Amino acid sequence: MVKAAILGFGTVGSGVEEVLRTNAALIERRAGTAVTVKYILDIRDFSGTPFENVVIRDFERIENDPEISVVIETIGGARAAYDFTRRALAAGKSVVTSNKELVATHGAELLALAREKNVNYLFEASVGGGIPILRPMLQCLTANRIEEVTGILNGTTNFILTKMLEENVSFDAALRDAQTRGYAERDPSADVDGLDACRKTAILADLAYGREVCPDAIETEGIRGVTLEDAENASRAGCAIKLLGRSILREDGRIWAFVAPHFVPKTEMLANVTGVFNAIRVTGDAVGDVLFYGQGAGKLPTASAVVADVVDAVKHREVRRVLSWEPAPVSDTQDAAPYVADLADMPCAFYVRGEAGDAFGRCERLSADALITQVMPTGEFREKIAALRASGREIHSVFRVL
Amino acid sequence: MVKAAILGFGTVGSGVEEVLRTNAALIERRAGTAVTVKYILDIRDFSGTPFENVVIRDFERIENDPEISVVIETIGGARAAYDFTRRALAAGKSVVTSNKELVATHGAELLALAREKNVNYLFEASVGGGIPILRPMLQCLTANRIEEVTGILNGTTNFILTKMLEENVSFDAALRDAQTRGYAERDPSADVDGLDACRKTAILADLAYGREVCPDAIETEGIRGVTLEDAENASRAGCAIKLLGRSILREDGRIWAFVAPHFVPKTEMLANVTGVFNAIRVTGDAVGDVLFYGQGAGKLPTASAVVADVVDAVKHREVRRVLSWEPAPVSDTQDAAPYVADLADMPCAFYVRGEAGDAFGRCERLSADALITQVMPTGEFREKIAALRASGREIHSVFRVL
Repeated sequence: MVKAAILGFGTVGSGVEEVLRTNAALIERRAGTAVTVKYILDIRDFSGTPFENVVIRDFERIENDPEISVVIETIGGARAAYDFTRRALAAGKSVVTSNKELVATHGAELLALAREKNVNYLFEASVGGGIPILRPMLQCLTANRIEEVTGILNGTTNFILTKMLEENVSFDAALRDAQTRGYAERDPSADVDGLDACRKTAILADLAYGREVCPDAIETEGIRGVTLEDAENASRAGCAIKLLGRSILREDGRIWAFVAPHFVPKTEMLANVTGVFNAIRVTGDAVGDVLFYGQGAGKLPTASAVVADVVDAVKHREVRRVLSWEPAPVSDTQDAAPYVADLADMPCAFYVRGEAGDAFGRCERLSADALITQVMPTGEFREKIAALRASGREIHSVFRVL
Repeated sequence: MVKAAILGFGTVGSGVEEVLRTNAALIERRAGTAVTVKYILDIRDFSGTPFENVVIRDFERIENDPEISVVIETIGGARAAYDFTRRALAAGKSVVTSNKELVATHGAELLALAREKNVNYLFEASVGGGIPILRPMLQCLTANRIEEVTGILNGTTNFILTKMLEENVSFDAALRDAQTRGYAERDPSADVDGLDACRKTAILADLAYGREVCPDAIETEGIRGVTLEDAENASRAGCAIKLLGRSILREDGRIWAFVAPHFVPKTEMLANVTGVFNAIRVTGDAVGDVLFYGQGAGKLPTASAVVADVVDAVKHREVRRVLSWEPAPVSDTQDAAPYVADLADMPCAFYVRGEAGDAFGRCERLSADALITQVMPTGEFREKIAALRASGREIHSVFRVL
């Protein structure tokens, strides 16, 4: 029997307890041993609930209990979670998490500590919620040089964009709807401004290309600038608008990584991912495009991924999972040919709404004031937009086209 | 260094050699050791090619060479491939394959032999070509009770149906186009009549529910009955037509399993899978729906999955992968409450084209002679169709609605 501790009994933590309990027989068969929750660490009062005997407030009890071999961190953030994760790993316990902020910012360090202690640090649930993505990308595509990872990584923004495009609802109204349904926080900025997608983009790039990508190095634009006029133009162009987190391997071995709203042609599977669902498209040199789709958040879907990692940690107590990446190259801290390359030479077509005139030569015209450019280097495009604005022309919206 | 033998140097076998050679450095890093091809077994003459020194015609050399630890079977079929696979496993070599016919018909026996010899028998490429599906379903969804697996499992039929629906091309013309492009065989029956999808459905059900499903127990209907009138009606109904292989867990622990053309609403991701692409939707009790999409066939995509299994076999030389299912229950051979249940009580809505009159009560009418019924038990629907036909009414087409 394996005894686990859950840190933080919020949505994901309670989902993990529920899945471990509901599917206990099945999990025991698949893990080769029963997995029980010995402690739940939470500062709230659980007296009178079924959990009153396992809820504790003192992490030291977990840290010092040799019976605990797996710690499930569902606190979130990079403060207490960071401290507890380090201490759990240092105490020789495997740690499983859904915490994208912690993995994106301290993943390399925590993986190194896990390696040193010969335990596992696993975080399938940190990207794509319940969608199997990190392990399939590493294991099943292991024969491939990965060339690009592009995903709809945030369900809240995808819900808002879907409402705007399909129901002609304004950004503000769609956001309020998302908040009413509990998809969006009262302060929605981590979702709406792209930070959540940025962290997940960093983790995907870490694993896909084997080298640490600092979230700060990822140019990130959220969806606040998307208007109903843009939604209408997207429909005219046969596109949806999607917030995409992307990383692309360059020929020189460096990468482009960025988060931005994109026009996505309806012929692309990604354009058909609606509501709170997520999807990640991975391009390998042998396999071509593969796509993984499912619920990117939510209690039970996220718990599904966390518990799969717990089973994996249990089955691999003797053998560490090979899951790691190299630290960020020193050059990244010196601004000399940084590993995450400037977007200036990245070729892309762009959607422009505003007084662009014929600044972009041959274009696809969507309406009197909207067009899609030919593919051009991002730097050249940005210079032209800057020049237009400098000459007093109004440019309302500018988005990439996938 | 690990030495491997490739059996059969056709499309997939040569793709495997190409991927192992092209991505050798990357594969060595990920597998922890180099993987080289020592033998290629093929009866054709390769003199003058780069392979002349490794091509052999005598399987005994592979069987008796202690240096060979992994055998890659890409012969196909269940004759020579069956014999060689048994002998390789018996000789203590792991076997990796893309051979769905062999896995569907002899998988349980070969897995038992592999277990006995403490080696691996791996077949990720047998379903969905390059798409990671079997391993993600087993590992990443391991915390879930799987409730349904529904997939577009055959690229040739999906290409034909896409042509018919999107370009208004007849079945015969679309089939000829598929043959010209090399997607369909000269004798296309294994694809067009659903046998290929049936085998893959069997393998998915074996793994999803842990019990052997004989392909013969899977009611299988191909796409020859789909006409341009049906394609037009599907468009009217906001649907695509897709050949789906499905297995559904019943409340009594038995399953329904079948292959049939379906009307699929465009709001479903599966409806947007076009051309030769495949996709598999897996429903788990915790994760909900997840979907895996990519190229279900082709040289390099299939090789991508085969080589991933090779890497897995190399990394798990000491530890066997837990990959197996129980033999078919005895009842299945006695016709008493068979594990694969009769479809009679499976609820479904149906599309009907023909002189149905008002035999189905309240319906969605698509045209003068086409309708979609309410959800009803399959048995009740079939009785009504039989009665209509017995009374002299012409019923042209009958398909399920997803």
